[in-house]
Amino acid sequence: MLKFSYRNKKEPVVDGLKEKDFQTVDSLVNRDLKEVNNFIIANIKSEVPLIPVLSEYLLKSGGKRIRPRLTILFSKLFGYNYGKRHIQLSACIECIHMASLLHDDVVDESAVRRGRKTANRIWGNKASVLVGDYLFSKAFQIMVKDNDAKVLDALSETTRSLAQGEVLQLSLINNLDISEEKYFKVIEDKTAKLFAASAMVGGIVAKADTKTLQKISEYGKYIGIAYQLLDDALDYESSSKRIGKKVGDDFKEGKATMPILLAFSKSNSEEKEFWIKAIEKLKQNKKDFAIAQKIIKKYDCLSLTRALAEKYCQKAKLIMKDLPENTYNNQLIKLTSFVSERSN
Amino acid sequence: MLKFSYRNKKEPVVDGLKEKDFQTVDSLVNRDLKEVNNFIIANIKSEVPLIPVLSEYLLKSGGKRIRPRLTILFSKLFGYNYGKRHIQLSACIECIHMASLLHDDVVDESAVRRGRKTANRIWGNKASVLVGDYLFSKAFQIMVKDNDAKVLDALSETTRSLAQGEVLQLSLINNLDISEEKYFKVIEDKTAKLFAASAMVGGIVAKADTKTLQKISEYGKYIGIAYQLLDDALDYESSSKRIGKKVGDDFKEGKATMPILLAFSKSNSEEKEFWIKAIEKLKQNKKDFAIAQKIIKKYDCLSLTRALAEKYCQKAKLIMKDLPENTYNNQLIKLTSFVSERSN
Repeated sequence: MLKFSYRNKKEPVVDGLKEKDFQTVDSLVNRDLKEVNNFIIANIKSEVPLIPVLSEYLLKSGGKRIRPRLTILFSKLFGYNYGKRHIQLSACIECIHMASLLHDDVVDESAVRRGRKTANRIWGNKASVLVGDYLFSKAFQIMVKDNDAKVLDALSETTRSLAQGEVLQLSLINNLDISEEKYFKVIEDKTAKLFAASAMVGGIVAKADTKTLQKISEYGKYIGIAYQLLDDALDYESSSKRIGKKVGDDFKEGKATMPILLAFSKSNSEEKEFWIKAIEKLKQNKKDFAIAQKIIKKYDCLSLTRALAEKYCQKAKLIMKDLPENTYNNQLIKLTSFVSERSN
Repeated sequence: MLKFSYRNKKEPVVDGLKEKDFQTVDSLVNRDLKEVNNFIIANIKSEVPLIPVLSEYLLKSGGKRIRPRLTILFSKLFGYNYGKRHIQLSACIECIHMASLLHDDVVDESAVRRGRKTANRIWGNKASVLVGDYLFSKAFQIMVKDNDAKVLDALSETTRSLAQGEVLQLSLINNLDISEEKYFKVIEDKTAKLFAASAMVGGIVAKADTKTLQKISEYGKYIGIAYQLLDDALDYESSSKRIGKKVGDDFKEGKATMPILLAFSKSNSEEKEFWIKAIEKLKQNKKDFAIAQKIIKKYDCLSLTRALAEKYCQKAKLIMKDLPENTYNNQLIKLTSFVSERSN
């Protein structure tokens, strides 16, 4: 295991913060997250009112803010307390995420996100495409102003992967013949790499060394994979538990996500025929989602998907053992558990 | 008028190139444009086949390549002949342009571009949105690798303007109450600023000084405005002259471009009613486009629009008098005339 010469040395003491004083850490992180929000709002002011109106609607509809949380916590884990780069770059990453949500909802024809109507349902697909482009370009402007080659390299490569993952996912729609490798390629590209970059950027602003950045990035990648696996499982879980979330979107589009891939591989010939008709031929009737849920339950595929997510969270936790032990480290371990256990 | 100490001094002599030897210059620029194409093709190779397939379809469907032409000519005007940055950055700018074309065609619901079916008609809106995102992110990656703060500043601000201009245009659809100032704001943001940046990047790679870059940028802006004015006029010109172009797209969408704004301001009350019904209420029948063309012709609005474009081209030409006089300068003046006279 790697040893860090600065382990415990650089542990930040902010406002007399004590080890395990989670409440204080939470309120510190929340204060930073509020600053991130304010920074985004200040930066999307435009002569064109539709831009802030639509963006703020999305921003204010909540979200778990895991990506900025990663940047903030990793910057503080390595003692960054001398500037606002963690705020600005968190905002930049959140703008990339918001842009991709806007485009996702157009591509997926979604009607509900975070318990509210999607922006495309209110302002139309055209507005969502173009305001998404605005947020992307704004994100690039923020990172260009930050002016750090490492950050620029990481985030430009990450946005390329994100777009590539989305195109790959689109190419694989209505297709059950997807290898596990290809499924993981999609979720790494479209989700995990932005998590990895969010974490790594925290390390970069705190001047962590290359080997450490590699570790941080792996932590981010692992919880990103876990996050997406959970998302894919949650799309088949009963809606009663999940306020403001629609289930069955992936099924309706014919996306072969992990629960379906597992179920398909275990299905008998009659069930296989059902999947081919529903997912590949996209011939679905009203009762088909319930049938899909039943087959998935029969073969315990949601538990299997959750177990897979848990495996990745364990990998992430293991990495945290190699990093400075402080209250922010504990907080990141808590975040890992949150990701693998979430039901929303 | 500004005098440049290096006027004529730094005039590049490439392969024994002689003044006014336009054919040689043309073939030099064409060789560079071919390199730009090859660079783009090499850079959009991806594990996901849809990305190069769709992008190359767009790339191979032609286009005038005015933006890369500007970068190449301005770099050479100032004697840049010691690297490939003009090629790489032209490719980057062309990728931004291609991305915006893909998103434009989705937003405008266009069916034909450059005489061929639009990408969204062949591969669907979803693919166009996502491959557009890929090209945007690829462009950012190319400029990040180039690693020049001036270029990054210029291009990140330009893409922000481009997206802002598109959203502003969308906000103003079905609205005849648009001031000339607002119309110009749209076309500067959505078109002219990328022309300005394309020209300026040529100057940046050739290490032109700040004052000169300002001039170059103005040249680009002026011909960008002229280019868009012509585009807006051409959308009302008889289709017989314009192979592979559809006319009437702006009218069908209810976009109040310069020809309509001029016609509306001159219209009698009956004609005004026609415009309100067709543009603001978007109640159109088959014959309405012909009626629109007739009113536009009655008040000579296409000539007026072309005259306005010509005015901006003259401004651009005037700027060229302040810049080094060499064969590339002459070529840029020729380009200016091409922009103001084009019928396609």
